Amino acid sequence: MINTESLIRDLNLIRKQSPLIHNITNYVVMNNTANALLAMGASPVMAHSVDEAAEMTNISSSLVINIGTLDALWVEAMLIAGKTALNKSTPIVFDPVGAGATSYRSKVCKQLIEECKPSIIRGNASEIIALLDTQAQTKGVDSTNTSGFALDSAKTLACNTKAIVVISGEIDYITDGTTDETVKNGNPMMAKVTGMGCTATAVVAAFAAVNKNLFEAATHGMSVMGICGEVAAAYSKGNGSLQVNFLDTLFNINEEMVRKNIRL
Amino acid sequence: MINTESLIRDLNLIRKQSPLIHNITNYVVMNNTANALLAMGASPVMAHSVDEAAEMTNISSSLVINIGTLDALWVEAMLIAGKTALNKSTPIVFDPVGAGATSYRSKVCKQLIEECKPSIIRGNASEIIALLDTQAQTKGVDSTNTSGFALDSAKTLACNTKAIVVISGEIDYITDGTTDETVKNGNPMMAKVTGMGCTATAVVAAFAAVNKNLFEAATHGMSVMGICGEVAAAYSKGNGSLQVNFLDTLFNINEEMVRKNIRL
Amino acid sequence: MINTESLIRDLNLIRKQSPLIHNITNYVVMNNTANALLAMGASPVMAHSVDEAAEMTNISSSLVINIGTLDALWVEAMLIAGKTALNKSTPIVFDPVGAGATSYRSKVCKQLIEECKPSIIRGNASEIIALLDTQAQTKGVDSTNTSGFALDSAKTLACNTKAIVVISGEIDYITDGTTDETVKNGNPMMAKVTGMGCTATAVVAAFAAVNKNLFEAATHGMSVMGICGEVAAAYSKGNGSLQVNFLDTLFNINEEMVRKNIRL
Repeated sequence: MINTESLIRDLNLIRKQSPLIHNITNYVVMNNTANALLAMGASPVMAHSVDEAAEMTNISSSLVINIGTLDALWVEAMLIAGKTALNKSTPIVFDPVGAGATSYRSKVCKQLIEECKPSIIRGNASEIIALLDTQAQTKGVDSTNTSGFALDSAKTLACNTKAIVVISGEIDYITDGTTDETVKNGNPMMAKVTGMGCTATAVVAAFAAVNKNLFEAATHGMSVMGICGEVAAAYSKGNGSLQVNFLDTLFNINEEMVRKNIRL
Repeated sequence: MINTESLIRDLNLIRKQSPLIHNITNYVVMNNTANALLAMGASPVMAHSVDEAAEMTNISSSLVINIGTLDALWVEAMLIAGKTALNKSTPIVFDPVGAGATSYRSKVCKQLIEECKPSIIRGNASEIIALLDTQAQTKGVDSTNTSGFALDSAKTLACNTKAIVVISGEIDYITDGTTDETVKNGNPMMAKVTGMGCTATAVVAAFAAVNKNLFEAATHGMSVMGICGEVAAAYSKGNGSLQVNFLDTLFNINEEMVRKNIRL
Repeated sequence: MINTESLIRDLNLIRKQSPLIHNITNYVVMNNTANALLAMGASPVMAHSVDEAAEMTNISSSLVINIGTLDALWVEAMLIAGKTALNKSTPIVFDPVGAGATSYRSKVCKQLIEECKPSIIRGNASEIIALLDTQAQTKGVDSTNTSGFALDSAKTLACNTKAIVVISGEIDYITDGTTDETVKNGNPMMAKVTGMGCTATAVVAAFAAVNKNLFEAATHGMSVMGICGEVAAAYSKGNGSLQVNFLDTLFNINEEMVRKNIRL
């Protein structure tokens, strides 16, 4: 069961420490990701040049690698930053956007996992399955499998990679290969806001910057996402206002909001 | 006259089929474009790497090529994706952002039209005129000519390229070179939201994914843009809220909203 | 003291002339920057290709160079555009995002300042200090020094570079090395919206396009930012709605709003 006390402690730590989170992420979501991290009290930095990726990772408390709009130059920077983080034991949260949709994405995912050894991998069911099986077909960046169905794949992936694996969906699953956790908060409209999954990855990275127990960090991050999405959706008329209201809710989340809304 | 019944049928088809739309578009609008496609029920994917452009186009139902923030690497991917779509008869919707503003843009437009043979070309009056006449001066990405003035250029362009040509403006014109259609819905404040034209291009691409009659697809797409912009502007205080409210309206558009608001 | 009459005159001139502002800026803020310029009545263009940077600068009334997400290809375009602007005496507003965070950023800042001679430099306290002293440590893109503390550095930087230097903070400082101005409007929540500083740079560039007195232009730009941020924050619940409401306020700012809210 989610430990509400430690979640609240982490939330306060992020606000207090304002950890620097290095994001090498995709063009579509950069603005939202930066605003989500600022809303939580973290400090986002986006830097993808091979000329500074290592140095930026070196001063950061966690690293997000998100392949949403990858190309050869960006992958080079991801590998540099990822290896830097690995050497320094800085947590890496990896978002395999669209894994399986093209052979290039599958190949890059394989390489990033092997060479950077991400601490946490967060994707939807299709992506997690695709990471295990490059034969799996995904439809773009959308999930076509329910998250529960992918749990077996996630467990195997966690065992193979020693990463905490997170499957986003109606219910989120977090696994280290032996122990699982579920996050029941959320709202279906969240899937209609582009990059909500990418935001989850960044939020998890903020928790990983303040909590060395990465299973907890992943669980807390997904839980905060679910709570804020659920609270915000209740007063949103569509994906436009949900994108805005989600940030406002994350900006205002506090102990009271967590206790009132968390589904255990 | 716009066929309201077939417009509503297409809108429902997009929601039902959730077609994958491959966008090689500009950095400024990616977030909005993705959210607009999600609001309609389509599945957006952004992928610009030469290492996956062809494969991504191959699994997509239509392709958007938008040169707003072009450079040599992106143009290479646009050509690969465009030729892939052409070979497979996948509809290509081309947005010649800023055509005529620099000689580079004019040159790239010429090349993309010749080599990829877009099915639909959507631009403002300046851009459409510039596509015909590389001597024409445009002022950045803004239109300095009224859309009606450009109709002759659009007709010639349609005849030369066999594409459906759309001119966005106070009134939108759709032409195949012989038959014209007009879309009268819209609101002037839409021109103050960056990338509203780019969103129109993506929305047209969603209709082109479900309706093989591309003249109808273009008309329906522009009509939905106009209706949603007009409905959203009525309760927006500026371009900030219009950007958000537009997405919410697109998220909620249905048969009733179409019938109530369409200007025939 | 800020000259309210000339500020209002400039605001009206921007709306009347709709100057084209060429932005070579970062991925995170492009959408906001473009919308802010549109809200003011200016015409934004984003163009970073080396194949068109010079030509685009040549038809523009001012140039923004912002290194937020720099890499080698973009720096090449910044240098081309910057030198073009310098030759033509087109105002250049330079935003040294994250200066000092990595040696690469410091090196690029040095080169851009030496070769392009920006007319106005706008940064937070850390960045301005870092521009003078490459030994200075900054924490990502956030300011860790109060803006007043950096005023001495700003004055020296202004003397060394002949640029107007702006320090953003709770109070903004504008200096030409001998004369200083302060802008007291603003709200702390603005620092929680990503790219609010980048927007300030673009807004200053719009004023620089219509007012040859660049000390005034910088002061007016920062003042309009402060007023709009303050007015918008009063009805915003978090950084999500502030981002939207800020644009709406900038869209609606007029003589009355300026006179009512300006802090002299």
